[in-house]
Amino acid sequence: MKKKILEVLKKNKNNFISGEQLSNQLGVTRTSIWKHVNALKEEGYEIESISRKGYKLIKEPDILSRDELLIELESDRLGNDIHCFKTIDSTNNYAKKLALDGALEGTIVISEEQTGGRGRLGRHWVSPAGDNIYMSMILRPTIYPNEAAKITIIAAASIANSINKVTGLEAGIKWPNDIIIDNKKVCGILTEMSAELNNINYVILGMGVNVNIDKFPKEIDHIATSLKKALGTEVSRKEILINIVKEFEELYYNFINTGSLKKTVDICKKKSVTLGKIVNIINKNEIMIAEAIDITENGELVIRKDNGEIINIISGEVSVRGIDSYV
Amino acid sequence: MKKKILEVLKKNKNNFISGEQLSNQLGVTRTSIWKHVNALKEEGYEIESISRKGYKLIKEPDILSRDELLIELESDRLGNDIHCFKTIDSTNNYAKKLALDGALEGTIVISEEQTGGRGRLGRHWVSPAGDNIYMSMILRPTIYPNEAAKITIIAAASIANSINKVTGLEAGIKWPNDIIIDNKKVCGILTEMSAELNNINYVILGMGVNVNIDKFPKEIDHIATSLKKALGTEVSRKEILINIVKEFEELYYNFINTGSLKKTVDICKKKSVTLGKIVNIINKNEIMIAEAIDITENGELVIRKDNGEIINIISGEVSVRGIDSYV
Repeated sequence: MKKKILEVLKKNKNNFISGEQLSNQLGVTRTSIWKHVNALKEEGYEIESISRKGYKLIKEPDILSRDELLIELESDRLGNDIHCFKTIDSTNNYAKKLALDGALEGTIVISEEQTGGRGRLGRHWVSPAGDNIYMSMILRPTIYPNEAAKITIIAAASIANSINKVTGLEAGIKWPNDIIIDNKKVCGILTEMSAELNNINYVILGMGVNVNIDKFPKEIDHIATSLKKALGTEVSRKEILINIVKEFEELYYNFINTGSLKKTVDICKKKSVTLGKIVNIINKNEIMIAEAIDITENGELVIRKDNGEIINIISGEVSVRGIDSYV
Repeated sequence: MKKKILEVLKKNKNNFISGEQLSNQLGVTRTSIWKHVNALKEEGYEIESISRKGYKLIKEPDILSRDELLIELESDRLGNDIHCFKTIDSTNNYAKKLALDGALEGTIVISEEQTGGRGRLGRHWVSPAGDNIYMSMILRPTIYPNEAAKITIIAAASIANSINKVTGLEAGIKWPNDIIIDNKKVCGILTEMSAELNNINYVILGMGVNVNIDKFPKEIDHIATSLKKALGTEVSRKEILINIVKEFEELYYNFINTGSLKKTVDICKKKSVTLGKIVNIINKNEIMIAEAIDITENGELVIRKDNGEIINIISGEVSVRGIDSYV
């Protein structure tokens, strides 16, 4: 019911709507309306209430609450179910447990803080409370396990696009899974999957976006940035998050429905900070130094090795000369 | 303590050991010994107790209990921890949850019955209580996700070898994941993994072995068999299970330590019911008909298509003409 009241207030933002009207429309008592409005005020919503006039929503807080996001996303696909936490060990871990218990494609897990936030290869991802986005999404794509890397670059394209749309900042993509501003990392993507040998059970798409964080731990301060640091003003986490989900939804279902990754690859090429650069590629115990020359229609990175040999790589840990990076 | 008493009784099988000796050796009262011996009797152990002489283990039941298997496997690698259930939805699902919570390589999950037993692609695996083996093992191999198929064929080789050792029956391997006797399926393997793009978090190796089941549901009766049906007498589930774990342990660590799959491939070739046959290979919406001509050193199946083209396949759903199969 709180969600329904919020929905009506948002639709009538900056206008009064009477308690009576709300009561009739939603079929609950005016006392019940009053209680829920108070609860919303406690969450940070600025709501004016004047007797005879009713309630007026003046300002919405930048909170990532289930009600707020369900209303804003309005999707029966991505964001059809949303789990929000104040604190959690890792949104990817929680999403895995939900997926194991049968949660549907599009289920989203968000936390204000992660106590055990992870990047690739189990590395720590700095996840303090309140300023950033830590989100994981459950996907069940009908693709082969060796195609899972495509999900990562679809996410990278969506995030870079969204940051640009909401803030105007130029966000670059360091193939395959980092978003870069001013040569520093502003977002990382961690894609994990559960699979049989040639069938994916589910993919967990996790991301950490540094939105309004001011201070990073000393070890990563020179290689990490946030949208606020780059822009000079606070950025709405809610707006970034909603844009990312919507952009991703479009590119993801375009890929699933057509089998083509063209739209994503076009964005990744345009926004790449990797192409034309010398890169180090680390795969377990092997290190290759090569020039990144192209991204294929399947999202693979094409590199030219010292000896002139040209090969495609599907995934791997890539560092680009001149761009620092962590995790 | 019960496990320790059982361990001593097993070491002295068919000989009396006095309550006093047990009490001294294990540092507990004779009353406590007596209570644990009674508990063992209730589990099905035949133990003679004569005053002044003590206790004598005469016969062990064919039960898959944690104590029994920990003693028999005596391993700090595979079987270092064992979870036994009377009934569970699926041993693979439970193993996944344990793995997610950090369970180590070698953890084993066994159930007398599965209420939601699964084969590949989520198909049902008939899992009635008491007669068969339903086992899942947690592995954390340092290999790439696209190598996970190797774990399946290592398991196939181990199971076929173990069945032969314990029963004398010729068990064939239908590449990559079925064990066949008399052209019918006696065991299926379900390998699942959790992975990042180029790093495996864990592999769950699941298997269902039809040991002493007499009757199958009508739908699969013509394509399924059990060791008992093939041999004509009951077979010890415990012996089969222990042999499988030990054989697998040897082949698996040989592969992990040397990087070579030769030992496994040699067994798979020798016991193959696929090579030289016409096979249908189904991969999602694609069906290929071809002759299976070899297995590579990496465990891939080499097939010759109608047009003469020779290709290697890593995994897929294979049916062999003349051999029925389910799941």
